[in-house]
Amino acid sequence: MSLGSRFKAAILVEQKKPLVVAELTLPETLEIGQVLVKIHYSGICGSQLGEMDGAKGPDRWLPHLLGHEGAGTVLAVGPGVRKIRPGDAVVLHWRPGSGIESVAPKYRWGDETVNAGWVTTFNEMAVVSENRITKISDDFDLKIATLFGCAVTTGFGAVVNNAKLKIGESVVIFGAGGVGLSMVQAAAMTSANPIIAVDVFDGRLELAKKMGATHVINARNVNADEEICNILNDRYLDVFLENTGKPENIELGYKITGNKGRVILIGVPRKGDNISIYSLPMHFGKLITGSHGGETIPDQDIPKYMRLFSEGKLHLSELLTETFSLDHINEAILGMRDGSISGRCLIKM
Amino acid sequence: MSLGSRFKAAILVEQKKPLVVAELTLPETLEIGQVLVKIHYSGICGSQLGEMDGAKGPDRWLPHLLGHEGAGTVLAVGPGVRKIRPGDAVVLHWRPGSGIESVAPKYRWGDETVNAGWVTTFNEMAVVSENRITKISDDFDLKIATLFGCAVTTGFGAVVNNAKLKIGESVVIFGAGGVGLSMVQAAAMTSANPIIAVDVFDGRLELAKKMGATHVINARNVNADEEICNILNDRYLDVFLENTGKPENIELGYKITGNKGRVILIGVPRKGDNISIYSLPMHFGKLITGSHGGETIPDQDIPKYMRLFSEGKLHLSELLTETFSLDHINEAILGMRDGSISGRCLIKM
Ligand SMILES: [Zn+2]
Ligand SMILES: [Zn+2]
Repeated sequence: MSLGSRFKAAILVEQKKPLVVAELTLPETLEIGQVLVKIHYSGICGSQLGEMDGAKGPDRWLPHLLGHEGAGTVLAVGPGVRKIRPGDAVVLHWRPGSGIESVAPKYRWGDETVNAGWVTTFNEMAVVSENRITKISDDFDLKIATLFGCAVTTGFGAVVNNAKLKIGESVVIFGAGGVGLSMVQAAAMTSANPIIAVDVFDGRLELAKKMGATHVINARNVNADEEICNILNDRYLDVFLENTGKPENIELGYKITGNKGRVILIGVPRKGDNISIYSLPMHFGKLITGSHGGETIPDQDIPKYMRLFSEGKLHLSELLTETFSLDHINEAILGMRDGSISGRCLIKM
Repeated sequence: MSLGSRFKAAILVEQKKPLVVAELTLPETLEIGQVLVKIHYSGICGSQLGEMDGAKGPDRWLPHLLGHEGAGTVLAVGPGVRKIRPGDAVVLHWRPGSGIESVAPKYRWGDETVNAGWVTTFNEMAVVSENRITKISDDFDLKIATLFGCAVTTGFGAVVNNAKLKIGESVVIFGAGGVGLSMVQAAAMTSANPIIAVDVFDGRLELAKKMGATHVINARNVNADEEICNILNDRYLDVFLENTGKPENIELGYKITGNKGRVILIGVPRKGDNISIYSLPMHFGKLITGSHGGETIPDQDIPKYMRLFSEGKLHLSELLTETFSLDHINEAILGMRDGSISGRCLIKM
């Protein structure tokens, strides 16, 4: 495989339609700061479902590639690239790290051009910007490594950097997908108490218990607001981690946190979805803030968390529930939507 | 004057009515941590207007005293008080500082009881909690000292502690009352640029120019949104300091600040006045947060700012535009409402 050759990719051609799996052609040369990576595994993140649905409105980049967490091997590097070399095992991530931010690549699809961002991972090969790549140890399991592209770093970062969660604080994790489950684990590792996970799928809530949730709530069966208050008894809620981006859930978190509580928004809202909140408690210390990938610094955080995993202090295998081939990526996406898939499912190239 | 004696006070008997000026009787003894202060001057802050109007809803403490910035002389101290002595010149403030937080005093009014908080200042004499008092130099002008109870400390604190304003950043101060004018001055002392003051009264805007505003906007005559954008040209707004508590102004600030901008709420909203905002920009770093008296630490901040004044680096005399007697306090309040009074008017006891 090399520049100019063909590779398979899942393409977003139209919003609200399944992805089209087809063969594309790599560019003939690498620009400054670009790196050619053979991708072994990609995760699917909730934000790609939002992108497919057009949650942020019309998409002027169609047709384009998708995916923002992956693991692979470097095949070639463009001019100026110094932090990685051909043969390196790497994690692909969307938060910018050190190195050059290159121009974004374009691929040929017959006579058409397919767009892509600085990193995409629903494709066998990718031209990636140097600053979206972090070198890892050669013997690190690439399935596990994939999770460090977003699920682990975003989830841990939201707990550590945004919420600054402390021992004994009460926390609600609203939405227990791949990122939410990482938050549950980070909360447990911080000795928060209680750790309440909320979702609408029992499979995810079972996983949340394994990850350290002290209580789980299926919001499809019971009133989450009441249940959380019952669990807290007469304590205030310290931290609410919101993963759905839905105004009613953000407003719930804002309502049930105490005057010194923190509402951290990780799920992004659909275009035009405003929240309605009473700002007075902000004067007493209530915080509502958005997370940008947990403010992760890839060069520092990925090695730090990988070390924890290698020392047996991070449980990630449990998160990896199913693996699909690229040809079956639309089934994986359906399974995420209908809740039949819990944890993080991987695409194997 | 001593314990058990009579003194004049302005009493809030009913919401949305003028204050009643009458004679009350001091308690016979001071409780632990209480300090008897002869008040020389009191400021009137926008938040007392809100209290009179019932902005936060029904008031279960009626009838009660009001006012939260003043300057006076200590007459007597209760058990346990160690940081001040009879004869000390002091500033009275609402942010808690060091020392004991005593029980709140009650006063007799014929057969009735009149309530009061840890500090009140619309009264000739006051029983104040030790932690609401800061000793100052005997030769410091007590008219000027009054401003350190709230106007200066809240305004400077919002700029320094909440907004963390930096050299060259753009800032809008929305509402140019006593606190807002202090913000203008603090912004000028920080070399912010531009410094845009918005109000509906020309008198206040004239003062804002004196305090260092580079631009002033009368929102009664022009569209503030458009005017601010014209002034900024194609720059983003870094900081919006909101002093009115009105949802439409908070929403304006949230809209016109850039993705890394900070919206600092100083004016508190009326009960039930929700804001409607789009939370997506919070993920990119936009901050909306409430100030609690500029997070002032009275023991540290009052001496610090007083030193600046003594060295000629703070312009406060310009803020003191009018002085009323306690008997005429309702006229002062009317003048603040209709804009005929700019700056901070004082009540002289
Ligand atoms: Zn993600
Ligand atoms: Zn005040």
